Order: sequence, then structure tokens, then C-alpha cells
Amino acid sequence: MPTSRLRADEYAQRRGTVADGLAGRKLDALLVAFSPNVRYLSGFTGSNGSLLVMPGRAILFSDPRYQIQASEEVSCQVKIAKGSLVEAVAGAISRLRLRRIGYEPARMTCDWLDALRGKIPARASLEPVSGWIEELRMIKSAAELERIRKSVEINSRAFEQAVQQVKPGMRERDLAAELEYRMRRLGAEKPAFETIVAAGKRGALPHAQPTDARIENGSLVVVDMGAVQEGYSSDMTRMLFLGSPSPKVRRTYRAVLEAQQSAIEAVRPGASTASVDRKARKVLEGYGLEKAFVHSTGHGLGLEIHEPPRLGKRDKQRLQPGMAITIEPGVYLEGFGGIRIEDTVVVTENGCRILTPTSKELRLV
Amino acid sequence: MPTSRLRADEYAQRRGTVADGLAGRKLDALLVAFSPNVRYLSGFTGSNGSLLVMPGRAILFSDPRYQIQASEEVSCQVKIAKGSLVEAVAGAISRLRLRRIGYEPARMTCDWLDALRGKIPARASLEPVSGWIEELRMIKSAAELERIRKSVEINSRAFEQAVQQVKPGMRERDLAAELEYRMRRLGAEKPAFETIVAAGKRGALPHAQPTDARIENGSLVVVDMGAVQEGYSSDMTRMLFLGSPSPKVRRTYRAVLEAQQSAIEAVRPGASTASVDRKARKVLEGYGLEKAFVHSTGHGLGLEIHEPPRLGKRDKQRLQPGMAITIEPGVYLEGFGGIRIEDTVVVTENGCRILTPTSKELRLV
Repeated sequence: MPTSRLRADEYAQRRGTVADGLAGRKLDALLVAFSPNVRYLSGFTGSNGSLLVMPGRAILFSDPRYQIQASEEVSCQVKIAKGSLVEAVAGAISRLRLRRIGYEPARMTCDWLDALRGKIPARASLEPVSGWIEELRMIKSAAELERIRKSVEINSRAFEQAVQQVKPGMRERDLAAELEYRMRRLGAEKPAFETIVAAGKRGALPHAQPTDARIENGSLVVVDMGAVQEGYSSDMTRMLFLGSPSPKVRRTYRAVLEAQQSAIEAVRPGASTASVDRKARKVLEGYGLEKAFVHSTGHGLGLEIHEPPRLGKRDKQRLQPGMAITIEPGVYLEGFGGIRIEDTVVVTENGCRILTPTSKELRLV
Repeated sequence: MPTSRLRADEYAQRRGTVADGLAGRKLDALLVAFSPNVRYLSGFTGSNGSLLVMPGRAILFSDPRYQIQASEEVSCQVKIAKGSLVEAVAGAISRLRLRRIGYEPARMTCDWLDALRGKIPARASLEPVSGWIEELRMIKSAAELERIRKSVEINSRAFEQAVQQVKPGMRERDLAAELEYRMRRLGAEKPAFETIVAAGKRGALPHAQPTDARIENGSLVVVDMGAVQEGYSSDMTRMLFLGSPSPKVRRTYRAVLEAQQSAIEAVRPGASTASVDRKARKVLEGYGLEKAFVHSTGHGLGLEIHEPPRLGKRDKQRLQPGMAITIEPGVYLEGFGGIRIEDTVVVTENGCRILTPTSKELRLV
């Protein structure tokens, strides 16, 4: 089928980029064992896989559960290990007489590294290589952006459908179930993370898990949700209000919305991630709310829901066309609740494109 | 409330067990940074937390997003770090003049360990401690078993409700959505893993993700699902058949069912995990199906969906009362499909108790 042909080409091309970069890093091979990176370079979606990338060649190691799946998904060589993957990888390193093998220290456990060290020939050495694949992953191809766009689309449609069901007395957990169900019925593979539905005071917990608490009249509700579509994530936060919001709610909402819009206006190639974060903080400062904003302004997303770049106070990454990021300032006030507004946006040649189609008005239910 | 009082006691008791074991391991403290282990020892459910356990004291480190949540969930000291947790942990190690600090090498990334090593005083050393908390977690308390039982119960009820909806032409993905929706509506926090619905030939992939493929008349369908209830997982696999099964399907189903029952009969205190696995394999051998059984017979479950003990060919753990495990032999035949039958069982003083209430007859739809 033309689609999978295209995909196989994209993976081979990415492996080619890595293979071409090995010599400059004085490496014979790069060992990748972190699932999203393995998927990025091979298309393999199983939970247990390691990929050894060499010039002109790559081997995917997995276990017998994934024998058929790996042969279907992957265009490079596949080696199904009966025992541990560490042993299979070490065997290949030895057989292929590799000397300097890069590994990903942020993604590999101490145990894995020690076990591998104990099994490779004395002439071989393992060299830490930090963030290389994550850096490649930051800039999305057209095909990747299309998947993110689809994911955003499904996510927003699921939100619209589920919000129709909201009424006073509904449990947080049931709204979360409704959101995720709609998402899946619309074609998502799964939620990108545990859907957050936090009503009233519980909204002050930025990462609240939905509980049996009921959504009552007069409450603000944080809904933070994302879908996964062909492996790619979306991420959106919208606020509901049941009844008629007080002046304080309206004012706080306006502050966060202004902060979010101001940050989005700063998104363009060459801008630093910290400068985007600063824009949001500055607006909130004008409202005396800067201390209530306890997280960063956003993060990259793609094969992971959180991936580089991060848009925080101290982050110095320069934005580049093709980056897909969230912009999500929020304020959290104990005893009052939380307000966060979040879009998924893509950095373009001239600025950015907001992918999220959902209205940013406070949604009155 | 009495419930949370009880819980706080349970966590304090577990930390006490660890604290008491430090001296024998020549340690001043144990650093735990793996979420399920942090939760086991503190009750903290956030995604970013590290716990330092010392005699008579413990500190949970997290970030500002979890400030309120941590203070609600945790009975030990909480330290909210503005910057990285590594720095906060290193600061405490220095301030408290700790000399020998255990860490979990199977759970910590090489980067974390290196960063921590670079920040602690020269007199302090980091010592690998393998599987200690996982070993404690293997034996479930009455309160934990009750949560697993509830999780199993909800999971089976969700299965019953969703199976009512199955008809020819339904998409795998829509059945998965239905199963997860029912689970959540019944009170589960989330699915314990990506629900597997694999129809027809796709059943030959042991870890198939649901696709847009339609469930047709005349197909076998693997349904593998689990719920999370108060943090604890359940796991069940059942088989559906649409229409009237062929003699080959009936025979293969019988083989797997016999293998599963034979393995369950072998579950009792003192039996080795390998001996349970062997029972299942032996039955399948009698049917000439041993090569089609490409994974282990089961695994422990609790705060994680896969945790020790593992019940595979080479696993030598002895079963003990209070262990919660799955028994799930399966056969996978390319071009035919897969058949797996899985229960969650608990090792008792005399044998075992099957928690899963769902019938093991091949379910004809």
C-alpha cells in the first residue's frame, strides 16, 4: 500500500540522518531503547524493543510476543530474542565488532547499562549521547503535523460531544469517562494522558485526577484532555462554568486568557522558549496573579505528550518552524480553584498556527 | 476520616519496614524515585516525586504542581522543590549528613544517577539496591487485596456490559472504547493497560492494539482488559466467538482452558513460579501446541500491571500467601488467530483463590 511505503521511507530517512551523524560523534552505532525513540526511527509500536542504528544498517530487537507485529511494522532487520534483549544486543555488538556504541543516558536505567557493559567485549565502549533523537523529533515533518492535526481535531470534537452531557450533579469521573469514550469512538487510539476533570476547589490541583466528586452549580471545571492518533498526541484545556460566574471568576478567566493570547503572539521562529513564558507571566503579574502560576507555559508534544522543547522560565531553546507545542498558562488558588487555557500550536515560517479549533470563551453550562 | 487514618498508618508501617532494614544493608537512607514504589511507601500519586526514607523520618520531594496534592496525600514531610528534584534530594543528603544512600538501579536513569553523584558531598556514596521495594510489594496486605478484588469485580462487570453490545461489523476499536467506558462508569480510575481487542487473524499478535478492523461472523476475538481501582490493577482475558466455532477452534480453546486450569491447580505456597508455568506448557504439549505459546504463564500485579513475580520457564520465585498473580497461557497461530484465557488469582495459605468471576466458557455471540 502506498501509505506504508511512504512511512517506511520516512523511517529509513530518519535512520539515515542518525547513521550520517555517527562519524561526527565518533560512534560506530547508536543504541536506542526508549519506546518513542524506537518508534520514531523504526515504526515499531511494541512495548519492548531496542534499535541498533549503524551506517547503512539497523537491527530491531524484540521478544517473541512481537514477532509478527515487528515484521509488519518495521522495514529494517528484526531480531527476536528468546532471552533478554540486553544479551541479544550485546551479541550483535560483539558479532559486528562495534567499538564505540552511543546510548541514551536519560532513557536507560542504570541496570540496563550495567548489564550491557558486563556482556560486551572489552574492546567495545558505551558512550552517553544526550537528547539527539529528541532533538530530531522536535521538528515535525508534514506527515507528523498532519497526525497531530487529526489528533487535535478528534480531541476537540470529543470535547464538544461530551460537554453536551454535562449537568449539575454529574461526577468528575463520569465526565472524564464520557470525554475518553467520545475520543475513542471518533477514532483515537487512546487518551494521551489521564484526562483531568477538576471541579470547584479541586481545580487548584494542576494535575488533579477525576474523583467521584459531583460538579455542582456555581463551579468552575477544568477539563484537560488529549487524544492519540497514529501515535501522535494532542493537548487542550478548556474551562466550564455551571451557572453564572462571579466577577472574580470572570476577571481571573480574563487574566489567563490574555496571558495565553500574549504568549501565543510571541511564538515565532527564533523566539526563545523563555521569552514566550515571560509574556504569559507578565500579563498575570498585571493582575497580581503571577505567584498563582506554578508551572511552565507549555511543552512540545508528538510521540510523547511531554517532549522538548519546554517553555519555562529558564528554557533557552529557540523556536523553529515545525515545532508543535502547547501554550497553557494557568492560575491555581487554594480555596477558589484553578483556571487554565491550553491550545496546541505549530511554529510556522512567520509565526504560528493554532491547531485547536475550540472556542476559548468561558463555557457556560 | 478513619479510612485515611488507616491508610496513613499502612504507609508509615511500610516506611518503618524499610527504615528497619537500612542498617542491615549498611545504609543511612534509601532513595526511591520510581512512582509505584513512591506511592507504596507514601501514598503520593503524582507523576513527579522522590522519597528519601531514613530511620524515623522520610521526606517526599515534588514540584509546585503537586504542592496541595502532596500535603493531602502524604503523612511524612513534604519538600516542594522549585528547581530540579535531583538538586533538592542532593541538598537534603548534604544537610542531613547522610553517607551511604541506597538507590534503585532498575528504576533510575543513568542521567539521574550521574546528576545526583555530581551534586552530593564527596563523603556520600550511592549504593545500588535491587528489587527491595518490589519484594515487599509482592505480598499484598488485606487492604491491598481488597482493592485488587474490587478492581477485578469492576473489570468483569464492564466486560459483561460491553459484550452485550457486540455484533458482527463492530470495529475492534469501538469494542475497546465500550469496555473502557463501562469500566470507568463503574468507578475505575482508568484502564490498567491498553485494552486489547483482536479479531480473527489479528489475535495471533499477543499484544495487538485495537484497530478499525471489523469483527466479522466466524471470528475468534481476544479481549484482554484490566481496570485500576484505588491504584490497584486487575487483568483478565476472555475469548468471544461470533457464530458457530469450527472443531479446530473448539479443540484449541479446550487445550488452552485445560492448560490454564492445570496451572491454577499448581498455585500454592511453596510452589515455584517455573513449576506453574511448566504445568501449562505440558498440557499444550499434549495438543502439539507448545511452540504456539510464546510468552510466560503469568505475572504479579498490584500498583503496576506487571510486577514480580513472573511465572515463566526460568523463574525460580517461590509462591507465598498474599501474592496476586495472573494465570494466562495462550496460543498464537499465524493465519488462524490467538486464544488466551486469563484470571487474576491470589495465593492463599492452602492454594489459591480465583478472583475473576467471569465464566471461562468460550463466549458465543
